[in-house]
Amino acid sequence: MLEPAEHWQDGMRSALSYRVADSGMTVAVVADHVVETENEYNARTLVEPDIAKNVFRVQAKAGVPITVTKLVSYHTSRGVPPRELVDRCRRSLDRAADEGVETVFQRQRAWLDAFWERSDVQIGGRDDLQQATRWCLFQLAQASARADGAGVPAKGVSGSGYSGHYFWDTEIYVLPFLTYTTPRWAYNALRARVAMLPAARRRAAQLNEAGALFPWRTINGEEASAYYAAGTAQYHINADISFALGKYVRATGDEEFLRREGADIAIETARLWATLGFWRASRLVEESDAGDGIETFHIHGVTGPDEYTTVVNDNLYTNVMARYNLRYAAKIVREIRENHPEDYVKLVDRTGLGVGEAEAWDRAAEAMYIPYSEGLGIHPQDSLFLEREVWDLANTPAEQRPLLLHFHPLVIYRFQVLKQADVVLALFLQGNHFTPEEKKADFDYYDPLTTGDSTLSAVVQSILAAEVGYQDLAQRYFEQSLFVDLHDLHHNAADGVHVASAGGVWTALVCGFGGMRDYAGDLSFDPRLPEGWPSLSFPLQWQGSALQVTVTKDELRVQVRSGPPVPFSVRDTAYFATVEDEAVVPLADQGPRIPGRPTLRQFADARREDGTRMSASVPVITTAIPVIESTD
Amino acid sequence: MLEPAEHWQDGMRSALSYRVADSGMTVAVVADHVVETENEYNARTLVEPDIAKNVFRVQAKAGVPITVTKLVSYHTSRGVPPRELVDRCRRSLDRAADEGVETVFQRQRAWLDAFWERSDVQIGGRDDLQQATRWCLFQLAQASARADGAGVPAKGVSGSGYSGHYFWDTEIYVLPFLTYTTPRWAYNALRARVAMLPAARRRAAQLNEAGALFPWRTINGEEASAYYAAGTAQYHINADISFALGKYVRATGDEEFLRREGADIAIETARLWATLGFWRASRLVEESDAGDGIETFHIHGVTGPDEYTTVVNDNLYTNVMARYNLRYAAKIVREIRENHPEDYVKLVDRTGLGVGEAEAWDRAAEAMYIPYSEGLGIHPQDSLFLEREVWDLANTPAEQRPLLLHFHPLVIYRFQVLKQADVVLALFLQGNHFTPEEKKADFDYYDPLTTGDSTLSAVVQSILAAEVGYQDLAQRYFEQSLFVDLHDLHHNAADGVHVASAGGVWTALVCGFGGMRDYAGDLSFDPRLPEGWPSLSFPLQWQGSALQVTVTKDELRVQVRSGPPVPFSVRDTAYFATVEDEAVVPLADQGPRIPGRPTLRQFADARREDGTRMSASVPVITTAIPVIESTD
Repeated sequence: MLEPAEHWQDGMRSALSYRVADSGMTVAVVADHVVETENEYNARTLVEPDIAKNVFRVQAKAGVPITVTKLVSYHTSRGVPPRELVDRCRRSLDRAADEGVETVFQRQRAWLDAFWERSDVQIGGRDDLQQATRWCLFQLAQASARADGAGVPAKGVSGSGYSGHYFWDTEIYVLPFLTYTTPRWAYNALRARVAMLPAARRRAAQLNEAGALFPWRTINGEEASAYYAAGTAQYHINADISFALGKYVRATGDEEFLRREGADIAIETARLWATLGFWRASRLVEESDAGDGIETFHIHGVTGPDEYTTVVNDNLYTNVMARYNLRYAAKIVREIRENHPEDYVKLVDRTGLGVGEAEAWDRAAEAMYIPYSEGLGIHPQDSLFLEREVWDLANTPAEQRPLLLHFHPLVIYRFQVLKQADVVLALFLQGNHFTPEEKKADFDYYDPLTTGDSTLSAVVQSILAAEVGYQDLAQRYFEQSLFVDLHDLHHNAADGVHVASAGGVWTALVCGFGGMRDYAGDLSFDPRLPEGWPSLSFPLQWQGSALQVTVTKDELRVQVRSGPPVPFSVRDTAYFATVEDEAVVPLADQGPRIPGRPTLRQFADARREDGTRMSASVPVITTAIPVIESTD
Repeated sequence: MLEPAEHWQDGMRSALSYRVADSGMTVAVVADHVVETENEYNARTLVEPDIAKNVFRVQAKAGVPITVTKLVSYHTSRGVPPRELVDRCRRSLDRAADEGVETVFQRQRAWLDAFWERSDVQIGGRDDLQQATRWCLFQLAQASARADGAGVPAKGVSGSGYSGHYFWDTEIYVLPFLTYTTPRWAYNALRARVAMLPAARRRAAQLNEAGALFPWRTINGEEASAYYAAGTAQYHINADISFALGKYVRATGDEEFLRREGADIAIETARLWATLGFWRASRLVEESDAGDGIETFHIHGVTGPDEYTTVVNDNLYTNVMARYNLRYAAKIVREIRENHPEDYVKLVDRTGLGVGEAEAWDRAAEAMYIPYSEGLGIHPQDSLFLEREVWDLANTPAEQRPLLLHFHPLVIYRFQVLKQADVVLALFLQGNHFTPEEKKADFDYYDPLTTGDSTLSAVVQSILAAEVGYQDLAQRYFEQSLFVDLHDLHHNAADGVHVASAGGVWTALVCGFGGMRDYAGDLSFDPRLPEGWPSLSFPLQWQGSALQVTVTKDELRVQVRSGPPVPFSVRDTAYFATVEDEAVVPLADQGPRIPGRPTLRQFADARREDGTRMSASVPVITTAIPVIESTD
C-alpha cells in the first residue's frame, strides 16, 4: 500500500518517504539526532527503503550525562512528489536547529495557550469531569489543527482505525466546536470539501443524480465505503456538509468564502436532492383545482444516521436535513443574485445554475414529506419503521451487545432498534421545526430503542434528554461520551480516539447543559446546568466577537471580551452584551426536571395506525435442535 | 485453492490429484495412453504436482496409420483422501481396458438411448426448435447424471461460472424435469439436501432462527454467498427445497424416502418459517371476542426471487411458498403419525418434534398474510412495492441493459422494476391458489416491469403468458430461453451453460404449451399448443407408470407405455388411461388467445391505495455539470 520512495542518511539525519499505491498521496519524514555527552560513544546508521536506524553505543560513566535530542519533521500531501516533501522536512528541521529546541517549545506553548483561551470549557467543582473534558478538547486540537486541505479523520492522527478516512462525523460532530472556537480550522475543513466537489459530481453521475454526492467515507474525495447500505446510501452526508457550511457562515459572518466557493457546496448538494427525491400528487389535490394542496416531495431508498435500519423510504432525519439543504441553497442563491451581481455571474459560470433552479428547491423543501404517526403522536424514523417488531433491549443480555457483533444484519433489520440517534439528532440540529411536546414524545419513544452501539449517539441523547427534562439521564449520557476512550467503554480505544465523540462532548456541554442554539443564525440560550455543578463557563467566537458565557444555578452571564456588541436571547427574551457591559440574565430554574428515563413500558398499549399492537421481543436464540417434549 | 496431492507416472499412465484448501473436497484424474502404429516413435513423459504430460514423437510414414487412445477417469468426493480417489480412477481404467473401448462406447449409447426414451420432447414440424430443445435436454443429462451426493451446480460441469456452486435453481428449475423423467436423479439431488441439514441447522441458529436455513449458495452445505441482500435474505430457498421434495414424493410415490429422511427437510424448514415469521393481531380481532378473526402471520426482512428489490416485508412469493411449506410439513407429520407409528417414533427422535408443532404450522399457514391491492386489483410483490416509482423500461435504451451492470443497486432499488419473475413465479408454482382473473391482472402488471436480466425469468413468463392467453408472447419468451446459450443471448455463455434455463425449457414445453400441472398431487392438462406447431409430444414418469402425452390442435392423447392405470383431468373433466386403452381427449381450442403483450400504458390511470398516481420514469442520467440556460 505504501510504496517507499526517496530515502537516505546524511550524518545524523535520516530521511524516508512514501507514495500510497492507490491514491497517490505522499508522505515524508526526516529526523535529526543531536548527541551531547562527555562520554565516549560511537554511532551506527542503517537506511533501507522502509527503515532508518541510528544506534548510539555509549561507554557511559557514572555521573556523566547523556542527552540525545531527536527532531522529527513530517510532511504529507495529496500528490507532491516525495522528493519535494523530503526537502520541506529538511527545511523545517534546519529552521528548528537555527532557532533552537527551546524556541520551538515556546512557540508550541503559546499556540496551546491561545487554543485553551478560545476553547476551554470550565466545569466548576468537578475536577474529574474537568480533566476528562480537557483531554477531549486536546484530542480535537490535535486532530483538527492541520486539517487544511484534508479534513478531520474519524480517528484524527491517534490510531489506525478507519484507515485515516473521514465521514460525516467531521461536519456534524467536530465542525460546530471548530466554528465556535477556532473558525479558521472550520474553514480549512470546509475548503477540503470544496476541493472534493469534482469527485462528488462524478459520484452523483455514477448514481444517476444531478449535482454532487459527497463520499460517505473517503480520504481523497473518492467514495471508499465498501458496503453501500451503511455507506453510500447515507445520502444525508450531503445535507450534513451544507449544514456545517451554513453554521460556519452564520457564526463567523464569512460570506466572502460563501460567495467565492462555499455556495457551490450548497448548490450542488441541493441539486442532488432535487433529482433523488420525487413528487407525488394525491387524488385529493387533483380533484380540487388548488395546486397548493397536499402534493408532497419524497426521498426513497436512503439510510439515515442509524445504521440498524438501512435503505428506507422517507427517513425523517434525511428529509428534514434535505429540506434545510434545499432552503439554504435557494436562500444564498437569491442573496448573491440580489446583493452581489458580479459574484453571481461567476457562480453561474462555475455551477451552470439555471433559471428557476432555486425556486424549484424552495418548492421541494416546502412540500417535503415529514413522516408523522397520529396514533402514536411521534415521528416515525421512516415510512415503514413502525411496521417492524420492537426489540426488547431491556431483556437483551449484556453479552449480546453490541448487537452488530452478535446478530446478522438481517435479524437486526427486522426490528425497531437503533444503533444511534436518528430522529433525535434531527430534533437537535433542526430543533426550531419541532415543538417541545413533539421532542418529548419522540425522545420517549426512541430512547428505549437506542442501543448506543455507536459512540456518536450518547452526546445527542444527552443534549435532548437535557432539553426535554431528563436531566439525570442527560448527565449519564454525557459521562458515557466523556469517558468513552479514557475508560475504553467501547473496548476499541486501541484503534484510536473517537474524535467525533470528543467533539460531541463540547457540544453536550455548550448546547446540552449550556443550552446554546443558533437556529436561523440567532444566538440563544436555555441552560440546563446539572444539579451538583456550581457553574459551567465557556468561550465562544461569534461574528468577530469573543464571548465568555457562564451559567450558574441562578443566572446566565455573557461577557464580550473583544469585538462588536452581541445580541442574543434567553428563553425568548432578547438581550445585548458589549465589551463594556456584560449581560446578566437571572434564571428561575434550569428547565423542566423529570426523574428516571423513558422505558418501553409506557408503550405497552401503543398501536400502529392500522390498530395493530406494538409488542416487544428478543430474537429467538437457538444453538442446537430444540429440546421439546415429544408427543409419545 | 487447489492443493496438489498424489501425482505420478507409470509407463503410459499418469495420475494427478488435489484437495481444495477451504472445503477439503478432493479430486483425482488418471489417464492411460495406448499408441498403436507401425511407425517408429518414442514417448516422453513428465510429471509435476500440477501437470502430467505424455509426448509422442512419431517418425510417421505416408499411409501408415497412428492411433492414440486416451482413456481418462475422474473421481471426486467431499473428503475421501486423494490417494484413495487415485486408486478408484485406476480401477475404472483397468476395467475399461479389460472390457475394451467399444464396450464402453456401447454402454454409453445404451445409457443415452434410455435417457432419450424417458426425456425427449418432440416438437412436430419445427426442426430448429427440436434441435435446440434436445441440446438443452442433453445439457441437463450431463449436469444431473452424477449429482448423487452433491447436487446440480448452476453451470453443471460446463464452465467455471459460479465456481461450481448451486442455488435454488436446482429445486425450482431442474428437479421438475428430473422428477418426471429420471426420478432417481431427483432423489439423488434431494438426498444431497438431506446431507446438508446439519449445516443448515447451524446456519439457522446463526441467524437466530429455529429449524434449518439452507444456504443460498453452496458447494458443501455451508453458505457461500457474500452479499446477503441477494443471498442469505432469499430465505425462500427453504420453501423451494420443500416444494421440490413434495413434487418428487407425489409424482413418484416414494413415501419410504419421505419417512426415512425426506420429512426432516420439510420439518426443519417449517420450523424456520414459524420463528422467522410473527403474528400480528389487529384491534378488530381483540375487540370482538372471536379468536378466528383477522390475526395474520407476517414474514419481514426477506428477499424474493427478484433481486432488483431486496430485504422487504411480506414478499408475496415467499409468503405463498412458506405457506405451502408449513402446510406440507404439518400434513406429512400427521400422515406419518397416523399411518406409520414406528417411523414416527424415529422421526421424533431425529428431529425432536414437539407436541403441537404441526398444528402451529397449520395455524401460521392459514393466517399467512398475502398482500393484495384492492385499488389495482393485483398482488403487490411486497408490502411496500407499490410505494416505489415505476421504471419506464420501454424508454430505457438497450445499451443501459442489463440494469445491474449500468445502475447502482441504490438506483434500481428505488423503482418498481424486476430482474426476474417473482409474483408471476408464485402464480405458476402455486397456481391453484389464484383465480384466472388474478393471474391475468398480475401478469399484465408485472410483465412490463420485468427486465428478464436473469435467465430464470423468460421460461416462467412464457408459461404464464401461455396460461393467461398471450400465446405469441409465450412463444417469444420460450425462444429466448431456448437459445439463451446457443445464441449467447446474455453474452456470458463462455462461463458455462445456464442449466436452470435448460430445465426451464422442458418446463415451458411440458407445463407451458403442454399445460401439465400437478397441484395437490393430481395430474392435469390444459394445453396451449402454439399456432404453427402441428404437435407436441413428451414422455412422463408418473407414480411408476411411463406415459406418453401428445397434444395436437384438436386433441390431447395420453398413452400408458407401462405400469398401472393413470387418472388425470383435462379442463376439470376426469379421464383415465391404461396400457390397453390410451385416453384421447378432444380439444375445442388451445385456451384464450390475446394478441400483443401488456404494456405500462394500461396503467396510465393506475393509483395506489392512498390515491396517488403511478407514473413511470427513467432515472436521470448525468455525466457532467448540467448545461442549463443561465439566468442572465
